[in-house]
Amino acid sequence: MSEVAGRMSVQAAAHHLQSSSGGAGLLLGGVPGTPAAKVTIIGGGVAGTESAKMALGLRAIVRVLDTNAARLSYLSDVFAGRLDLVIPNRARTAAYVAESDVVIGAVLVAGAKAPKLVTRDMIKRMRPGSVVVDIAIDQGGCFETSRPTTHSEPTYIEEGVVHYCVANIPGAVARTSTLALTSATLPYLVRVATHGVAGAAARDPVLAKGLTTLGGKLVSRPVAEAHGLPYQDPATLLPAGPTPRPRS
Amino acid sequence: MSEVAGRMSVQAAAHHLQSSSGGAGLLLGGVPGTPAAKVTIIGGGVAGTESAKMALGLRAIVRVLDTNAARLSYLSDVFAGRLDLVIPNRARTAAYVAESDVVIGAVLVAGAKAPKLVTRDMIKRMRPGSVVVDIAIDQGGCFETSRPTTHSEPTYIEEGVVHYCVANIPGAVARTSTLALTSATLPYLVRVATHGVAGAAARDPVLAKGLTTLGGKLVSRPVAEAHGLPYQDPATLLPAGPTPRPRS
Amino acid sequence: MSEVAGRMSVQAAAHHLQSSSGGAGLLLGGVPGTPAAKVTIIGGGVAGTESAKMALGLRAIVRVLDTNAARLSYLSDVFAGRLDLVIPNRARTAAYVAESDVVIGAVLVAGAKAPKLVTRDMIKRMRPGSVVVDIAIDQGGCFETSRPTTHSEPTYIEEGVVHYCVANIPGAVARTSTLALTSATLPYLVRVATHGVAGAAARDPVLAKGLTTLGGKLVSRPVAEAHGLPYQDPATLLPAGPTPRPRS
Amino acid sequence: MSEVAGRMSVQAAAHHLQSSSGGAGLLLGGVPGTPAAKVTIIGGGVAGTESAKMALGLRAIVRVLDTNAARLSYLSDVFAGRLDLVIPNRARTAAYVAESDVVIGAVLVAGAKAPKLVTRDMIKRMRPGSVVVDIAIDQGGCFETSRPTTHSEPTYIEEGVVHYCVANIPGAVARTSTLALTSATLPYLVRVATHGVAGAAARDPVLAKGLTTLGGKLVSRPVAEAHGLPYQDPATLLPAGPTPRPRS
Amino acid sequence: MSEVAGRMSVQAAAHHLQSSSGGAGLLLGGVPGTPAAKVTIIGGGVAGTESAKMALGLRAIVRVLDTNAARLSYLSDVFAGRLDLVIPNRARTAAYVAESDVVIGAVLVAGAKAPKLVTRDMIKRMRPGSVVVDIAIDQGGCFETSRPTTHSEPTYIEEGVVHYCVANIPGAVARTSTLALTSATLPYLVRVATHGVAGAAARDPVLAKGLTTLGGKLVSRPVAEAHGLPYQDPATLLPAGPTPRPRS
Amino acid sequence: MSEVAGRMSVQAAAHHLQSSSGGAGLLLGGVPGTPAAKVTIIGGGVAGTESAKMALGLRAIVRVLDTNAARLSYLSDVFAGRLDLVIPNRARTAAYVAESDVVIGAVLVAGAKAPKLVTRDMIKRMRPGSVVVDIAIDQGGCFETSRPTTHSEPTYIEEGVVHYCVANIPGAVARTSTLALTSATLPYLVRVATHGVAGAAARDPVLAKGLTTLGGKLVSRPVAEAHGLPYQDPATLLPAGPTPRPRS
Repeated sequence: MSEVAGRMSVQAAAHHLQSSSGGAGLLLGGVPGTPAAKVTIIGGGVAGTESAKMALGLRAIVRVLDTNAARLSYLSDVFAGRLDLVIPNRARTAAYVAESDVVIGAVLVAGAKAPKLVTRDMIKRMRPGSVVVDIAIDQGGCFETSRPTTHSEPTYIEEGVVHYCVANIPGAVARTSTLALTSATLPYLVRVATHGVAGAAARDPVLAKGLTTLGGKLVSRPVAEAHGLPYQDPATLLPAGPTPRPRS
Repeated sequence: MSEVAGRMSVQAAAHHLQSSSGGAGLLLGGVPGTPAAKVTIIGGGVAGTESAKMALGLRAIVRVLDTNAARLSYLSDVFAGRLDLVIPNRARTAAYVAESDVVIGAVLVAGAKAPKLVTRDMIKRMRPGSVVVDIAIDQGGCFETSRPTTHSEPTYIEEGVVHYCVANIPGAVARTSTLALTSATLPYLVRVATHGVAGAAARDPVLAKGLTTLGGKLVSRPVAEAHGLPYQDPATLLPAGPTPRPRS
Repeated sequence: MSEVAGRMSVQAAAHHLQSSSGGAGLLLGGVPGTPAAKVTIIGGGVAGTESAKMALGLRAIVRVLDTNAARLSYLSDVFAGRLDLVIPNRARTAAYVAESDVVIGAVLVAGAKAPKLVTRDMIKRMRPGSVVVDIAIDQGGCFETSRPTTHSEPTYIEEGVVHYCVANIPGAVARTSTLALTSATLPYLVRVATHGVAGAAARDPVLAKGLTTLGGKLVSRPVAEAHGLPYQDPATLLPAGPTPRPRS
Repeated sequence: MSEVAGRMSVQAAAHHLQSSSGGAGLLLGGVPGTPAAKVTIIGGGVAGTESAKMALGLRAIVRVLDTNAARLSYLSDVFAGRLDLVIPNRARTAAYVAESDVVIGAVLVAGAKAPKLVTRDMIKRMRPGSVVVDIAIDQGGCFETSRPTTHSEPTYIEEGVVHYCVANIPGAVARTSTLALTSATLPYLVRVATHGVAGAAARDPVLAKGLTTLGGKLVSRPVAEAHGLPYQDPATLLPAGPTPRPRS
Repeated sequence: MSEVAGRMSVQAAAHHLQSSSGGAGLLLGGVPGTPAAKVTIIGGGVAGTESAKMALGLRAIVRVLDTNAARLSYLSDVFAGRLDLVIPNRARTAAYVAESDVVIGAVLVAGAKAPKLVTRDMIKRMRPGSVVVDIAIDQGGCFETSRPTTHSEPTYIEEGVVHYCVANIPGAVARTSTLALTSATLPYLVRVATHGVAGAAARDPVLAKGLTTLGGKLVSRPVAEAHGLPYQDPATLLPAGPTPRPRS
Repeated sequence: MSEVAGRMSVQAAAHHLQSSSGGAGLLLGGVPGTPAAKVTIIGGGVAGTESAKMALGLRAIVRVLDTNAARLSYLSDVFAGRLDLVIPNRARTAAYVAESDVVIGAVLVAGAKAPKLVTRDMIKRMRPGSVVVDIAIDQGGCFETSRPTTHSEPTYIEEGVVHYCVANIPGAVARTSTLALTSATLPYLVRVATHGVAGAAARDPVLAKGLTTLGGKLVSRPVAEAHGLPYQDPATLLPAGPTPRPRS
């Protein structure tokens, strides 16, 4: 669903930047002869990358902030020079937020609370009618000014800036999201149906990672740690399966 | 303003295709793993071309219908194979409309009523929740089912299909539109202020074309014809100006 | 050789789609003004990716079916929105095959029989003169209607559809294939010649994977399992080599 | 039809470069690790441009020779640095032909005999199994060694080089060609049917150019000159039509 | 030569931006993780367009200022959203110059003195070590602070900003410039050698425009006006040539 | 710093190819109408890839030599057919060097002496005024004719070919290099400051790899081997840290 949220975030930003929706009245890409809007995306993971594709697609000027040098190198390769890619520090983040028309928070840390990378002070310095979208809102949000909203009332204004913080962004495009979810999970279901839980997990390390209990044992380390219960490595419980086949 | 309308049309279509806005719940480009939506653009002039850029930018599958072979050839050159470019006839138009998730009517004929290229019957065969945008609505519209709407209530549903027929689309992005308009007209104003009306028109054939009267004579042929008044060629009234300078 | 086969498959499809070769008389990309042909590629591995590059290069409308979400995400990144990427199920595959002018079967599973993903019924619904290419034919083929052919008689017609099922596709471009093969194997040969078999395998885990016996021991697990012979982990037999050097 | 011929020419070259077709056994784009083939296209008009698109699409290294600086500048803009664009002289043409795996002659001069830009001597210096395609063959051909062939026997070998000189290239893709032709001519037919010949010609200067006689007068200057008959300017015979409307 | 100057200007800017050359020590495109430099190009004609290609090629963030809306529209088409295209006014120009690391003056007006679009005050607000390149220097320059330099001492510093104002930029790449010049002029020479001056001018309106005298008459209007001599339209002196042939 | 060196190498080559700098007087990309220069890059790792981006950006014809098939496949994907990618052998390298205007040596082997892949004999066959850049010079260089130079005198001529062998290339763009270095190291510093050395190394395997001693034990295998001292696996000394969190 990160991919849906990433793509939707730009569509939402473009819509709420319209004067007819209470925004600054800007077209993301401008038109030839007027300057394009500036979009800053915080986080270059799956969600941020899909945001970047859409923002470039609408012809904005796009900058992605991420601290992972290997990821930036990959993004430089595949976006062929169209993205400005920056390792941020607090001062740079403040400066970029201040000059942006749209800021998208895409800092997702699996299973953890998102860090508050953008402070109220930074938001305050944005031009009135600018738009921020907090994709990380279901993990607490990465803007200090974020609070969850819903599709029926998706935005509020704080410090003059339109905040779009819908907690369930994929719900806006229900049909695409359902297709994406069922398509992504179907292959796992088929494997479980064919080989049973243990057999499927033995064949597929990704599935194995998703196990919580197996044969009555607790095999999820975070859960074990959180509850002070004994943990068992699932590898010791799985049958020795056939080597997974490479694809070519 | 054709460029603003063309770009906005896709943004409007994407928004109203959301389930949260009453549409079919599709993301224009889908996500990797789900099929992209299909966009048909009727008319490959300035507005249609800008529509196509945005629809491709959001990663839809895009087809442009136009009867002008030279224009299609140019679009083939600059879009590098990303657009399907088709000379339409009535049967083809019907088939393309039926399989599209979004249809954008961009058939602008300067100063004339837009032809009704898409009939109610064609609209009826679209999937429910699909979206049509009629950019030509201020010239009567190019869909049989179009009627003008406003930014406060931009859409209505007819035959199960969402119609976005705002007569003044550029108003949605007032700041960009104002900039675009003043930027485009400023050079003409400067020339008129510098050389006077006749001097400026002598230097710039585009300005000359815009004259209605000059020195008390009627110099617009269509106005003269419409009112049965004597027409005079403006060239006979303009001073012999300096040759316009080429740029390089 | 997967890359050669992938690229050749599109060239073969384009040729046999010609009316002069018994096909439907279509140009893959059409020309500006006529619709482009539709190509469906089943499998987005190395072979399918190279097919996709060529089919897009000839300006067809291209869809790739694959169940591997991570692979689809990578293809979305590098093809920049030009490919429609879909996780298939049986119903979707049937629908896509029916509307395609060309279907390329590129489902290679190393060392295994290819699954029959496209049934005779699906083929039957294609338009007459369409072309299917089965790259997986040397592993049994992934179309129900496939049977191996040769370069001297590369195609046959079944259910009205031209089948190109040459078992040794790279043979069609012997010079390129020979270069590709010798270029790819030369670095391994040099390492074996320099360090001996065990020394080279110790330095290069890819080479180590290719060993069947070493010092009289059976070190290939699949062979050991197939014949019920004792297996020995090759790592226990290799000298402790220098750490492989990273490249930058 | 120039567009069909241009696109087909590369497809034909790729096919006949196969060892299975008697060529040098090369894949146009090679595969990663082997060098790509070199394609020289003589003439950067409509046909040559479409050839270039297809040759680049198959990932060859492509050079276009043309003497028209404005055209080269446009091609540089739209191909974004992927084409090597050279104004030829006799020595350069010879050098480029000698190092090419494929040469495509696309020098079409409307209504005139094509100039013989590539001599037998140049052809002789190409590597055996290379392929030349003469799109201009129906105007006499632009290679000294060209002679017309047919789809049933499309090639012959001269100086060790495969010659594809089919006089009616578009016939190979009959369905695409028919669609292209009817699509391109339909708008003219509609105008003639609506306004009559003279009325349509008055409205459309392109149609007017195609007239040979009108109201019993000879209005084609070349025909008049060729036969020593009196010529009349068609403009003097056409009704004063409405100004053609610009499109936007 | 505008094309050579345009391309060279970016290469010169990149070189003089190096700390080893006295500049700010920036790489035009930065590297993934550091912000790219900003390049503003004043003038989107041939020279400015070639500058833009090179600056984008080195992965800078590039903005082009031009007042010609049709030209901006074309640049938007062919650069596919990678250029920010703005119609300037004095205030905007000042703001863009101030935030740029490189400014390239490419405002060439054929045969006229270049307008001073960038004032000393604007230059003063650039960061120290920034670089400006004045391609228009041989027409007086378009920066208030420009004065001609030579290849042996190509730059000077004024207001802390490195000025590269070589009057004969193409001389830096003598071989490319010579080839470009002879390639561009050769076709005209051939035509004059074949048909004589009058015959060649009759066949080619571009050549005709270049005539100053013909058969003892003065046929250049600007020269006639400048010297108060009688002017004669060259068309009245040229033989009625064959219609120029269109190319396809 | 490999990325800075890779990008700078092309900028240096372009500058020294100028006649004003003693080179052959070529523009890397030529201009439309003149042939582009040929650039051969030896090594397709990080440095070579960044070189390739810049050389393509300046519109040269670029070939990359590398023996790593997987890397070539990735480069083929992301450069979309714009690079010629070849697995070299000695004969091919010689041929490519001879026909190149620029050769960039980017064969970096971490911690080892660079192999001399380009011999004096190969250099001798290049055209006079061609340019070679040896990025690997700080590891001994990969050209037989290389010797280290400095920014104050960056080049020398050997066998008629300009050699740019500055040992500290990133020093030329000090500001970009400093930013790149601090941006890349800051995240590690923050982790060490937060968790201590051992805690940070436990959380980050990349950091752990950089340790030489820990708690008085020698934990770098190469150092231990070089000095004949006892080595201890750092994993045995690190605290059992929290599982590193995946990003999305």
